[in-house]
Amino acid sequence: MRKHHLFTPGPTMVPADVALAGARDMIHHRTDEFRSLYEKCHSQLQELLGTKQPVLTLLGSGTAAMEAAIGGILSPGERMIAFNGGKFGERWAKIGRTLGCEVHEVIYEWSDYTSVDKLEQALEECPDAVAVFVQLSETSSGIANPVKELAEICREHDKLIVVDGISGFPAMPCPMDEWGLDVMVTASQKGMMMPPGLGIIALSKRAQARVEQTPARIFYNDLKAQLKAHAKSNHAWTSGVSLHQQLSVALDELLREGLDAVHRRSHIQGEAVRGAARALGFKLLNEKRPGDVLTPVLMPEGVRGSEVAKYCRANWGIYFAAGQGDYTDKIVRIGHLGYQDHFETIMAVAAFEMAMKHFGADIELGKGVKVAQEILMADLEAQAKRTAASS
Amino acid sequence: MRKHHLFTPGPTMVPADVALAGARDMIHHRTDEFRSLYEKCHSQLQELLGTKQPVLTLLGSGTAAMEAAIGGILSPGERMIAFNGGKFGERWAKIGRTLGCEVHEVIYEWSDYTSVDKLEQALEECPDAVAVFVQLSETSSGIANPVKELAEICREHDKLIVVDGISGFPAMPCPMDEWGLDVMVTASQKGMMMPPGLGIIALSKRAQARVEQTPARIFYNDLKAQLKAHAKSNHAWTSGVSLHQQLSVALDELLREGLDAVHRRSHIQGEAVRGAARALGFKLLNEKRPGDVLTPVLMPEGVRGSEVAKYCRANWGIYFAAGQGDYTDKIVRIGHLGYQDHFETIMAVAAFEMAMKHFGADIELGKGVKVAQEILMADLEAQAKRTAASS
Repeated sequence: MRKHHLFTPGPTMVPADVALAGARDMIHHRTDEFRSLYEKCHSQLQELLGTKQPVLTLLGSGTAAMEAAIGGILSPGERMIAFNGGKFGERWAKIGRTLGCEVHEVIYEWSDYTSVDKLEQALEECPDAVAVFVQLSETSSGIANPVKELAEICREHDKLIVVDGISGFPAMPCPMDEWGLDVMVTASQKGMMMPPGLGIIALSKRAQARVEQTPARIFYNDLKAQLKAHAKSNHAWTSGVSLHQQLSVALDELLREGLDAVHRRSHIQGEAVRGAARALGFKLLNEKRPGDVLTPVLMPEGVRGSEVAKYCRANWGIYFAAGQGDYTDKIVRIGHLGYQDHFETIMAVAAFEMAMKHFGADIELGKGVKVAQEILMADLEAQAKRTAASS
Repeated sequence: MRKHHLFTPGPTMVPADVALAGARDMIHHRTDEFRSLYEKCHSQLQELLGTKQPVLTLLGSGTAAMEAAIGGILSPGERMIAFNGGKFGERWAKIGRTLGCEVHEVIYEWSDYTSVDKLEQALEECPDAVAVFVQLSETSSGIANPVKELAEICREHDKLIVVDGISGFPAMPCPMDEWGLDVMVTASQKGMMMPPGLGIIALSKRAQARVEQTPARIFYNDLKAQLKAHAKSNHAWTSGVSLHQQLSVALDELLREGLDAVHRRSHIQGEAVRGAARALGFKLLNEKRPGDVLTPVLMPEGVRGSEVAKYCRANWGIYFAAGQGDYTDKIVRIGHLGYQDHFETIMAVAAFEMAMKHFGADIELGKGVKVAQEILMADLEAQAKRTAASS
């Protein structure tokens, strides 16, 4: 028997209802039937993202939506500030340079985060920047950035703020309109509980105005064409039909659970994994501002993260992610987002302990599991009490 | 009861096996398990496309692969010849201009095709063009272009030839290496019998060399990054995991049927639809060089193609496509590609007759159906004879 327990920060596990929805009768995308599906998904996406503005679904990965964001609001030669504290911050800068923007790149340690101080300094050094690019959750470090505070400062300085919520949304709160975000980017294969295939991008009025005045220099991910199609509840190019059939079901499930409950679930699971790792004597890469999407556990001397991940995958069907870049072997990332319940989180902790034991770490099996059980059980008891009280 | 009979030129109907394969356990894309899936699909794609060269699968629609082709082999300011005899020829030119290329656009009537004469004239007018862009099947007109002959001339003049086989492949023959094609572009949602979501692009050695020397100015569809990832049986960005699970099954089914049989099926169905339409007294837009992907029937005076398509869809679950651009109301396009058998083709002809009758055309019900039956039955009888002989 070989199961796939995905504790990777995307792709994540997909509910059977969602997976099977992609096998529904194929329909054509230039029809009222598809437009109804589009509109239904769109209003649910608005609700989840906390925005009254257009939310576009691009057929592609999150990187497609990242390229769309930069190409849509910045012309060649215009300046952007990109915070690079990990692989995905670095990606903002790379895309910007590829599209001919002047990138003011703020590189910092992966154990650090995009602080208000760093932003203020960057704005001083690069006062003519048009937009600021940050991560809600930096997937390669598990760090959560203070997006709300960063957005306030951007507003004061009249800069657009573009947020990569690819792994962060909807695991962590990020209400777009309330926080005054200009562009919010996410993707289907993380907390949305779907297969990869849809890049999602929402645009404030200010961002839409930039799109209108920015001449297109990319074609497939051009936002002007997509906004025009969106006005007719459609896409500029062929739609991801089966992916929208899945999106519709995933959105129903997320809204039934409720956004607060989704946040709480990832948060408590994060607490459990962090608590377990610390109880076992491990250090975390993201102690300064741990995010709720994944926990990056620093490997002990002599243990290589990539080998741990490979061993667990090949022998047990347990999927952790190793690190990226310089951290490839220095950490193992344990995800707690998407379609993952508390008991699977206990499983993840148990498997992590067993892996560390296998690789020779001096730990006691069950010590981290106990901590995770205590934290998760307290939450389950509280949930059951709430359910009983409301029925 | 409401069925979906898709006779549109993509998306097309999807076999249940293929659809359900997308609901398999989600796996992570940076693993040996995914790399095996990738390699299995890749060698089958090579077989179907008739090439020993790399075939890349991009998470996106066919337009993503079209942009990748232009951005990959041409730098800004370089010249390209684009033949525009329909919406997708026009798209080559639009993408080229968006990416800063000098486009020598040869615009001709939609009832016409990209002839050897037109190519020779264009090469005379634009001798410093680097590449020539054509369609195997122009989806908006149903025209088939003489790609083999065009490729010969391109080779003589040392120009790269880039072929849009999005709707044409694998319904019509187009062996890449044998014909000396440099770039072949296709997509999942047409003859491949899959949902939309994968753009596919194959590159000759010459094209790969161009990619290596062309600085990237697009990011998501950048071929240099994808070729680099391909060398490790992977994608530059997150892979369309569920789409590759479907691709694997679709490729098995296509190869089991056999490429010759796939071509014959679309061809005979095309003969049946063309024969039926002519017997009913209709004229076809693509008489000069009818392709086997779809048949564009010219509407009689006073009948609007878009209304016919809408009526059939809304009332019968029969999906034809109206025309595009200036031809939106002038034609109805009847598809015969992908997962469609001979009996469904008879259904399409019957529904088309009924629609024409409904809209007041002076036709006799059954007259076209009879012709289609005769043509398709002859093929079925021949098939049965071959099956009996080989068993």
